[in-house]
Amino acid sequence: MASSKLRVALLQMRCGAEKGANIARAGAMIASAMSAEVAPQLVVLPEVWNSPYATTAFPTHAEPIPEVGTVVGDISAETSPSLALVVNSAREHSVYLIGGSVPEIGSDGNVYNTCVVADPSGTIVAKHRKMHLFDIDIPGKQTFKESDTLTGGSTITTFAMPQCVVGVGICYDMRFPEQAHLMRQAGAKLLVYPGAFNTTTGPMHWELLQRARAVDNQLWVAAASPARNPESDYQAWGHSTIVSPLGEVVATCDENEATVTYELDIAAADEFRANVPTWSQKRDDVYTLVATK
Amino acid sequence: MASSKLRVALLQMRCGAEKGANIARAGAMIASAMSAEVAPQLVVLPEVWNSPYATTAFPTHAEPIPEVGTVVGDISAETSPSLALVVNSAREHSVYLIGGSVPEIGSDGNVYNTCVVADPSGTIVAKHRKMHLFDIDIPGKQTFKESDTLTGGSTITTFAMPQCVVGVGICYDMRFPEQAHLMRQAGAKLLVYPGAFNTTTGPMHWELLQRARAVDNQLWVAAASPARNPESDYQAWGHSTIVSPLGEVVATCDENEATVTYELDIAAADEFRANVPTWSQKRDDVYTLVATK
Repeated sequence: MASSKLRVALLQMRCGAEKGANIARAGAMIASAMSAEVAPQLVVLPEVWNSPYATTAFPTHAEPIPEVGTVVGDISAETSPSLALVVNSAREHSVYLIGGSVPEIGSDGNVYNTCVVADPSGTIVAKHRKMHLFDIDIPGKQTFKESDTLTGGSTITTFAMPQCVVGVGICYDMRFPEQAHLMRQAGAKLLVYPGAFNTTTGPMHWELLQRARAVDNQLWVAAASPARNPESDYQAWGHSTIVSPLGEVVATCDENEATVTYELDIAAADEFRANVPTWSQKRDDVYTLVATK
Repeated sequence: MASSKLRVALLQMRCGAEKGANIARAGAMIASAMSAEVAPQLVVLPEVWNSPYATTAFPTHAEPIPEVGTVVGDISAETSPSLALVVNSAREHSVYLIGGSVPEIGSDGNVYNTCVVADPSGTIVAKHRKMHLFDIDIPGKQTFKESDTLTGGSTITTFAMPQCVVGVGICYDMRFPEQAHLMRQAGAKLLVYPGAFNTTTGPMHWELLQRARAVDNQLWVAAASPARNPESDYQAWGHSTIVSPLGEVVATCDENEATVTYELDIAAADEFRANVPTWSQKRDDVYTLVATK
């Protein structure tokens, strides 16, 4: 029987304007995390780690990303260098790697904000396109419109590790309880959100939303942010965080570059579900969340 | 145009074993709250305020509760003294009164955990039967099984005040995002939960769940608990709380008897909804919450 323990490392890297430098930095941080005395079994990069977080930069930093099942040998480091870094690193270090997100140029010509997950053999085992685009306007504080250059994905994304099923969302996806609910429905006991909240919404909601998703769905939540870069137009909140199924913050950091490591116990999700069985107490005769796709 | 300001008072009363004494205490606390220099416009009693919180006590403290539309003159203080206190007080003080909850003996013979709302004319304008029964078992810490003597209700409950539509849930209902979602869907900009969390689940989740419901649905949340009574078998958490649409705790208290008063501004819900328009960004093509009843 597989252990219920899972060592997770969130890489809060500082991302800059130059794609090549970002790829090198990501590779160095992965190697550093894997050199720990007890290496992590799941490594997570932040949202849009190969590019500035700016609508104008998404198309210019975008890469083709093949479908789930593609193996390391079929990925071109020429056309998809960020993806190649993710998949190569997973195989090299024999680790599950949630590749944060990078802009993807789809075969349909649209640009997506896309997370790729590679397994220790160097195979793409999941691909999530950010479903809810970050279009907000808080006058005088934070205005952003991803939909200027991005298209939203339409798929609930999970993949299986030996320890548990893991669900993947990206940043603003975190505000939508329905998506988290459907990931639990698909068996997830850990949700991972690469995300780049900002200095307005970060202090208000970054931690609260993770704790809410954790308790409502009785599972672990981990969110990996870029480090704050004073040279960026967009000021990331940082504070990469891991939250227990009971909603406790068990590991976090500030806004600086950091690796947040924690060994979580999937059994804690099982215990909470058994003790407070909200899932079987839901009132299907009054309401139902339906997957329409 | 009606003001967007609404003064709310949560009455965190200490409840004992004797029904008559509880009714007298509730009446005194309502009168005291209404004697404030600027009186509240909405007063809220806690969950099961006329009885000990114990499955054996629910049937013995239960009363018939007539339907929405019933007026003060048609309510018998003989058979329904707790209800009569609520409706009479609303008319006497010309205030909206959310009557916490009391055990109800239904015409079907079942016992419910029921909240009645009376308007300033002394008319019942809403009646909510707790939908999700509190059946949990946290070994060595907290075990309770409402379903031993109670039956769950099946209705999403809202009512209209001049300032806004208000949704009503009871205690454990707070753990179910779907119910809150449907109350927002029905127009609510304030959710009120009479509730009696305990000293195990209270410190873990009482505040977190209110903040989660507030931010996910972009509305005000207010929760009124009984005060802790050292003589009770069930130790209530207290901490009656009001949370803004942004998820900030704006008013709260400890476990002792208290009145928590706050003037909230419904416009804050409108502003958050306009700035961060999650409701129109939901992906109906991927998921939909359906009211099945």
